[in-house]
Amino acid sequence: MAQLQRIAIAPAQIEENLITLTKEQQHYLGRVLRLRAGDRFIAMDGQGKWWLAQLESEQAQILETLTVETELAIAITLMVALPKGNGFDEIVRYCTELGVTCIAPVLSERTLLNPSPQKLERWRRIATEAAEQSERAFVPTILEPIAFSAAMTASQATHRYICEARGDYPHLNNVVKNDSREIVIATGPEGGWTETEIENAIASGYQPVSLGRRILRAVTAPVVALTLISAIYEV
Amino acid sequence: MAQLQRIAIAPAQIEENLITLTKEQQHYLGRVLRLRAGDRFIAMDGQGKWWLAQLESEQAQILETLTVETELAIAITLMVALPKGNGFDEIVRYCTELGVTCIAPVLSERTLLNPSPQKLERWRRIATEAAEQSERAFVPTILEPIAFSAAMTASQATHRYICEARGDYPHLNNVVKNDSREIVIATGPEGGWTETEIENAIASGYQPVSLGRRILRAVTAPVVALTLISAIYEV
Repeated sequence: MAQLQRIAIAPAQIEENLITLTKEQQHYLGRVLRLRAGDRFIAMDGQGKWWLAQLESEQAQILETLTVETELAIAITLMVALPKGNGFDEIVRYCTELGVTCIAPVLSERTLLNPSPQKLERWRRIATEAAEQSERAFVPTILEPIAFSAAMTASQATHRYICEARGDYPHLNNVVKNDSREIVIATGPEGGWTETEIENAIASGYQPVSLGRRILRAVTAPVVALTLISAIYEV
Repeated sequence: MAQLQRIAIAPAQIEENLITLTKEQQHYLGRVLRLRAGDRFIAMDGQGKWWLAQLESEQAQILETLTVETELAIAITLMVALPKGNGFDEIVRYCTELGVTCIAPVLSERTLLNPSPQKLERWRRIATEAAEQSERAFVPTILEPIAFSAAMTASQATHRYICEARGDYPHLNNVVKNDSREIVIATGPEGGWTETEIENAIASGYQPVSLGRRILRAVTAPVVALTLISAIYEV
């Protein structure tokens, strides 16, 4: 199964068989996803069209149009504070089944654990297995662990949300609409984000949201977030 | 934490401090939940009102009115075909966090496993822990394993759904509305329900529904179903 990374583009970026990449897309493909010239990736327009593309520094060549039935028409990046123990295995498995595009393990103030490179390999293997089992067309990208502050500024997507159990925030279902090609959603560690983290997230452009009235575990919150977003975009 | 079972009642069933129980409720409390005269349970009207009640054969005495903030205004019974291995542990933990009222482990054609009484104890312990962690007011009921055919006729609730990945069924989010005090939802084993089981479910009054375009594991489907129903009733 293709281990291809996916990015969302605007239809206007395509001319003939060339995609002109924005500065942010170049940064994301090169610095975050670590692709080089000649590497392939998936470009999607968020309206059900998918292309296999090949990176050429500031632009990309379209190689072929893809037919996709089990993938969401939106790129969902999940920023997850690393939970204790093997919790991340569960998150990768469930969220891959639920259609996630990219998962970034985040080192927050309440997660001291810095996982070994073997862990990263293990998560990528789980993502591949889960993508096959759930009959997805692509394997989600599992990024290397990233510090909270870097995570908050890694994406400039207009739809970014941070989930927080305490506090009187609107429910995710009341703020997410089927009107975007790209969503970033962050979920916290055991014990939740610190107040400072929530403040920093808001300052970086994240909107705080609730996932309901009960207190969810660190492994349950991303599963709930992915389920709700998938349903909003698929129903 | 109170290990009390919950049933939904209509406000008209209450007069002074007495609840007149319907024949079905008497059967459910006595035969399914195995309560006897003098045992306590929770009665809820599905509009946010909760009472602690004591069973007295054909009626029940209201002992006190309860204040509840983390519970859903609907009783959700989950019928789950028993998955392989320890999958049921995960289902009980996640679904308790997500607000389930009652879980019935179902022996379907593709589940041959008949769990030991120790398993049932273990599931009830997990439900208690998860209810405490998620700050719920009550612990969901975990019933004894039940055969598929008995499961299909155990409830006469008007809103009953069976989840099926293959086949062109409407999405759960398109059929469930915030208009009921009681929902029963059934999810299948690895490999799905058999065709005969789906036919029997439909004949028993179940409506087949989809949980999205990807194929979910037997442990993921109930988590997704509970997440979607909770959000419909809480948002």
